[in-house]
Amino acid sequence: MAHHMAEDHLNRQLTFLAEIDALKSVVRQSRLVNRSRRENSAEHSWHLAMFALVLSEIDPAIDVARVIAMLLIHDIVEIDAGDAPIHGTHDAAALAQAERTAAERIFGLLPGPQRDRFLSFWSEFDAAETADARFAKALDRLQPLLLNTLTGGGTWTENGVTEEQVCARYGPTIERSSPALWSRARALVHQHFAAR
Amino acid sequence: MAHHMAEDHLNRQLTFLAEIDALKSVVRQSRLVNRSRRENSAEHSWHLAMFALVLSEIDPAIDVARVIAMLLIHDIVEIDAGDAPIHGTHDAAALAQAERTAAERIFGLLPGPQRDRFLSFWSEFDAAETADARFAKALDRLQPLLLNTLTGGGTWTENGVTEEQVCARYGPTIERSSPALWSRARALVHQHFAAR
Repeated sequence: MAHHMAEDHLNRQLTFLAEIDALKSVVRQSRLVNRSRRENSAEHSWHLAMFALVLSEIDPAIDVARVIAMLLIHDIVEIDAGDAPIHGTHDAAALAQAERTAAERIFGLLPGPQRDRFLSFWSEFDAAETADARFAKALDRLQPLLLNTLTGGGTWTENGVTEEQVCARYGPTIERSSPALWSRARALVHQHFAAR
Repeated sequence: MAHHMAEDHLNRQLTFLAEIDALKSVVRQSRLVNRSRRENSAEHSWHLAMFALVLSEIDPAIDVARVIAMLLIHDIVEIDAGDAPIHGTHDAAALAQAERTAAERIFGLLPGPQRDRFLSFWSEFDAAETADARFAKALDRLQPLLLNTLTGGGTWTENGVTEEQVCARYGPTIERSSPALWSRARALVHQHFAAR
């Protein structure tokens, strides 16, 4: 009996790990630095986890392991709900409902205690109230900002976005967590628009 | 002066984070579960980190944060040295030298203390002597094994690999870290070959 329970537990975990392979097929707006194609949400999540591993030392209060766990799972709901571009328009309430339904279905594949833990991480990221979640959100803005400055403006150029709009859409989330990161990011944005 | 040092520190970190974007363009042999294309090493690294987040509870001695850090960085050397397929033949000594040179160049973009820490994580993974590194290596075998069983044999079919060869190439690394994981993986391998 204990053996069968353990086997069922592991089978549920492997089913979840197979299901989330689909995140590799969710395409975002940002282009790779080499401009060969647009980025997908799985490799974006890896890149963000690397941002956390490298940049979290900027604030000793940050628990990097929690930030990385949030970043690894934060986009998994896009498997069902899709990616909502920052420069696009969408029905925020409908999107929030679709993402909640997706979280319950996909994390619900896991054994109960893990499902609860992953749902809790995802909700914490989404709410952006804790220091760890705010830092994770800041990195989720900083990474596409950096990619855009390295690809001739990327989604900013494609969407005809001004320097002021960039600052309004990326700035508050980054600055609220780390004024030092925003100071550097703000300079990169200014350099990009000044050189156009 | 302190301000310029901090700015240089952050600039080195952002340079590193831009450089490793290239891992998204290193293509591996494994196919995605939906068979649309082969997997790249960045999304593979994300998937492995998720394997660690979900499966590490199998052994309370494992430090999941250290395992995830190793898995996030373990393939970065492939940006310079390429991916060496498990079913291929290659000059092991030449590859080891190329990967060491790559690690020193790429992690060398970081500020000194982080460069040393990342090199140390990479070496620990490579040596596979600690419990954390052995578990990370086991996941790096388990993930492509799972993808192959979900894609009609994947690289096994492409390379005409037998069930005995699969067990010899994937088994020891997984079993050494976790007999329970290998027991389940072994059953999946057997199911695949029995159904052909």
